[in-house]
Amino acid sequence: MAASDQSKDACYYQEWMNLQEEELSELNQATNGCTSNVELSSLIDKIMSHFEDYMKQRTLMARADVSPYFAPTWCSSLERSVLWIGGCRPSSYIRLIYALCGIEIESQLTEFLHGVRLGSLGQLSARQLSMVDELQRKTIREERSLSTRLASLQEDLLDNPIATMAVAASGGGGGGGSSDNVEAALDKHGHSMTAILEEADRLRLGTVKEIVRILTPRQAVDFLAAGKKVRLCMQEWGKKRDLDHGRIN
Amino acid sequence: MAASDQSKDACYYQEWMNLQEEELSELNQATNGCTSNVELSSLIDKIMSHFEDYMKQRTLMARADVSPYFAPTWCSSLERSVLWIGGCRPSSYIRLIYALCGIEIESQLTEFLHGVRLGSLGQLSARQLSMVDELQRKTIREERSLSTRLASLQEDLLDNPIATMAVAASGGGGGGGSSDNVEAALDKHGHSMTAILEEADRLRLGTVKEIVRILTPRQAVDFLAAGKKVRLCMQEWGKKRDLDHGRIN
Repeated sequence: MAASDQSKDACYYQEWMNLQEEELSELNQATNGCTSNVELSSLIDKIMSHFEDYMKQRTLMARADVSPYFAPTWCSSLERSVLWIGGCRPSSYIRLIYALCGIEIESQLTEFLHGVRLGSLGQLSARQLSMVDELQRKTIREERSLSTRLASLQEDLLDNPIATMAVAASGGGGGGGSSDNVEAALDKHGHSMTAILEEADRLRLGTVKEIVRILTPRQAVDFLAAGKKVRLCMQEWGKKRDLDHGRIN
Repeated sequence: MAASDQSKDACYYQEWMNLQEEELSELNQATNGCTSNVELSSLIDKIMSHFEDYMKQRTLMARADVSPYFAPTWCSSLERSVLWIGGCRPSSYIRLIYALCGIEIESQLTEFLHGVRLGSLGQLSARQLSMVDELQRKTIREERSLSTRLASLQEDLLDNPIATMAVAASGGGGGGGSSDNVEAALDKHGHSMTAILEEADRLRLGTVKEIVRILTPRQAVDFLAAGKKVRLCMQEWGKKRDLDHGRIN
């Protein structure tokens, strides 16, 4: 494995975060201007296809070396502390919609008072709300099933052959078992971790796709913009807190 | 907050790992020699009291700044990838007993063949096995309940007020909301994370205490030695893999 794996992963992530910033400003322009539904849809398609490409590339990189993806050093401590299987909890996308509805309802009050139009997510129809609700239940079910699989995998690590090799180590803590056996067992564990990461990524992507399908183009643009804003703010707040606590990444 | 928080946490952890190495060699000496049950029990008490002190100190440090404890940079990527709420899964201690029973059963075969006595964990009585089994079910129940609480906490992060503040940020991704509001909301989130970490630590400590109560002194010494061996091996294997992949911590 090349000595630059870590920096390659970190660079790729930084490129992705830069793209988030660019996409956010495109989304903001689209919401503020008089953009047609066709134009909005094509912007959404472009953004979703970037997301899909990112997931594909990330999968390839994780297959080469998965463990950093579960607690990436290229994120701040704050971001790492809220990770679920190497990324965002898919159900949190849906929580964001509900949070935005609340914000939008307040904004409409403001609009009523000041005549300013702020957004579209306060206008979800009853049918849309029930589809979002159904999606939330399905997503939480799949999240739970992946969490359980990850838990079993973590427990299995202490079964044979890894426990045997560790315990078979002679004397005070030296790495037990023959080096080849250890490498093989850890590689096998790594493959299972990669499979779970891939499924979590698939669930993240699938959930956003479903949400975009449920929403109108204008609502989807507002949703994607809000998601990216939250993501970028978390990064900024996390960096600031790391600096305040004397942590350098 | 002092600029040296991170290195203080990392140093304290390294001291703890050094103590693990010392304790392991004490445990190995005790198993190999003709140590009396009274002497074994006093060694076990000493080790358990170190564990308790470590948990107390760690809690104090986490209260000052919790987020690094969920994915500590002072561990290797391999160790971080198998963390559960800032540490070992409590149920994995029990999995280790079952793994050791298996090893011990094989070892007794070896003993029969070569006349060498290797350990005591293959000799768990039916009563002990049923107590271990009961403890496992109780531990998994409590683990699940803590996992669910952590999941809710992670989802809550996207509710108001954090989502509102992020979305209210003007323009392209600049940290939204007034800085004081953001700090207050993140501090509140941090306090809840600390509370969960403390409960997870309490469950870890409680589980090991229960195990030691179920086992005879000689079995408990074998169990503690095996646990420390596995822990130290994981650190060594993790460091090696980080080096192989060009990661420096």
